[in-house]
Amino acid sequence: MLAEKTNTTTPPDWQQLCEPVQPFLDEVTGQLQAEVETFDPQIATFVQYALGSQGKQLRPLLVALSGRASGGLNAEHARAAVIVEMIHLATLVHDDVVDGAEVRRSRPTLAANWGNKVSVLAGDCLFAEALQLAANMPTQSVCGLVARAAKAVCTGEIRQTLQRGNFQLQQAEYFELVGMKTAELFALACALGARLASAKPAAETALREYGEQLGTAYQIYDDCVDVFGAEAIAGKTLGTDLATGKATLPVLLALENTDDAGRKAWLAMLKDGEAQAEAIRERLVSDDIPAACRDVVTGYISNAKAAVENLPTGREPLLALTDCLTHQLDSLDA
Amino acid sequence: MLAEKTNTTTPPDWQQLCEPVQPFLDEVTGQLQAEVETFDPQIATFVQYALGSQGKQLRPLLVALSGRASGGLNAEHARAAVIVEMIHLATLVHDDVVDGAEVRRSRPTLAANWGNKVSVLAGDCLFAEALQLAANMPTQSVCGLVARAAKAVCTGEIRQTLQRGNFQLQQAEYFELVGMKTAELFALACALGARLASAKPAAETALREYGEQLGTAYQIYDDCVDVFGAEAIAGKTLGTDLATGKATLPVLLALENTDDAGRKAWLAMLKDGEAQAEAIRERLVSDDIPAACRDVVTGYISNAKAAVENLPTGREPLLALTDCLTHQLDSLDA
Repeated sequence: MLAEKTNTTTPPDWQQLCEPVQPFLDEVTGQLQAEVETFDPQIATFVQYALGSQGKQLRPLLVALSGRASGGLNAEHARAAVIVEMIHLATLVHDDVVDGAEVRRSRPTLAANWGNKVSVLAGDCLFAEALQLAANMPTQSVCGLVARAAKAVCTGEIRQTLQRGNFQLQQAEYFELVGMKTAELFALACALGARLASAKPAAETALREYGEQLGTAYQIYDDCVDVFGAEAIAGKTLGTDLATGKATLPVLLALENTDDAGRKAWLAMLKDGEAQAEAIRERLVSDDIPAACRDVVTGYISNAKAAVENLPTGREPLLALTDCLTHQLDSLDA
Repeated sequence: MLAEKTNTTTPPDWQQLCEPVQPFLDEVTGQLQAEVETFDPQIATFVQYALGSQGKQLRPLLVALSGRASGGLNAEHARAAVIVEMIHLATLVHDDVVDGAEVRRSRPTLAANWGNKVSVLAGDCLFAEALQLAANMPTQSVCGLVARAAKAVCTGEIRQTLQRGNFQLQQAEYFELVGMKTAELFALACALGARLASAKPAAETALREYGEQLGTAYQIYDDCVDVFGAEAIAGKTLGTDLATGKATLPVLLALENTDDAGRKAWLAMLKDGEAQAEAIRERLVSDDIPAACRDVVTGYISNAKAAVENLPTGREPLLALTDCLTHQLDSLDA
């Protein structure tokens, strides 16, 4: 994660954080791999390829840390992590179709390799399988929670698509979209971790809130990387948000901190975001927007920390995870 | 149905067939309409539009007739019918993206109106909502059955997409694809109708088999309409299978019933299916392929009838439904 998208710059404390739950993460990897066999042989290639878009297993890690903070892990936790990860992978496959993205994690996207048709349907297959796994969980409430989160994720994506080219977007709506399209799955991972360890409702609520705040922080960070980051480090096509007219925090902050004339100049540049990407970037940096973005992300990270401050146990790894993101934030205005 | 795609030619006995379950079908329509409200206001427009692709509610009818044949309908049946219909509508939305279809039920497709991006995500939203409804059903097994069927449908679609342009396709594989992409949801509708009426396992199996055979018959009929039908009657773009290199029964039969030279001539025509559509159609008709197709469909209809012949009650409406399809078959080689 936080190192998820940046293959080459794992924060120094990342390994340390994962180490206690490494057997769990390995179990999740093994179960996901075994899932490939449950697909029709003609589909297995695509599923196998989609699995390659997994990052550092951030969502499984959230299931694990939330479960441990709630009394410990059991067999259902690994299954829940597989489900959340599979929903995540399905949304990545469809996102790449919707965004026309050609590279993810330093390799061609499924859509770039096999076309949009196959990608739409392969995403559907992954999604259906995830829901089937959820339906077969001993804990009956899992399926409903998963389906509800999936609906929110898709709703966030579609609303963002509808806002393409609208740089009058309100910050409040931007944060709401981020909440739906990313934070919802983080929150689900944490809530399932708690639920399956039979956490008390207050603890489940706290962990869900932690996931939501951390997910929001992470998505905003990711949006900033798309504008300010270096492609070689990120391992994916950057600048796509500017090129496709997606209004994200850097641009929204810039538009907020200017007068009418400045606003006009910005909108003219943004209208031609693909060609003007470098000029936009330079202007944002000279306006100190990276630091302002970092402050916003830091605020959400603080909220995440605050959400779990009353948990009796298992708080430290959750806080350490937020520190990983804080560490990566430094690169934004390096 | 059977009149489903043919707005203007409802079989004479269709109304008679629906009449005893009309209150149920109206309830399903009302619940589907109420579902629109559960979507984000920005998505509701697309959901509302997608609902307009409903036909004669064939799948809800199957739920109703199977439920009545199994002891009677209860509140869960209407909900199950809503779920199956919503999955069906979601697949139509994605199919139209994959096929690049511009017209369905005599109006522009969602994709034609709002683009592929919105359509991919709107289909995902519908799919997620259907699974959420399934997860909240009192009968726990529904969600798993629905997710399993959804996976099969998507798998069938993707396999068919991979076979584009392959006119060496074996008939057995064609029938398998038809089974997955269409018959699976018919079978699900029947199985849920039985399951929710607490049918005995043998009765549920019989009704599932009925749905599968009828669904196969219906899809083959639909494929034939695409080749032989009249667009004004069908209410959708026809000839898309020939244009997109989809090998369906008429073409497979023609290729089977010829010698090497004939085969070569056919393949040359099929390679340019869009331009040659009229020539292909004429040649198929002069080779008596419509009659041969009708025989195949009739075989599946007979299987459907045989599947329910030992049901103690409620057999007649199920048989009458197969008669509707038989009646429509007459138009194929008129």
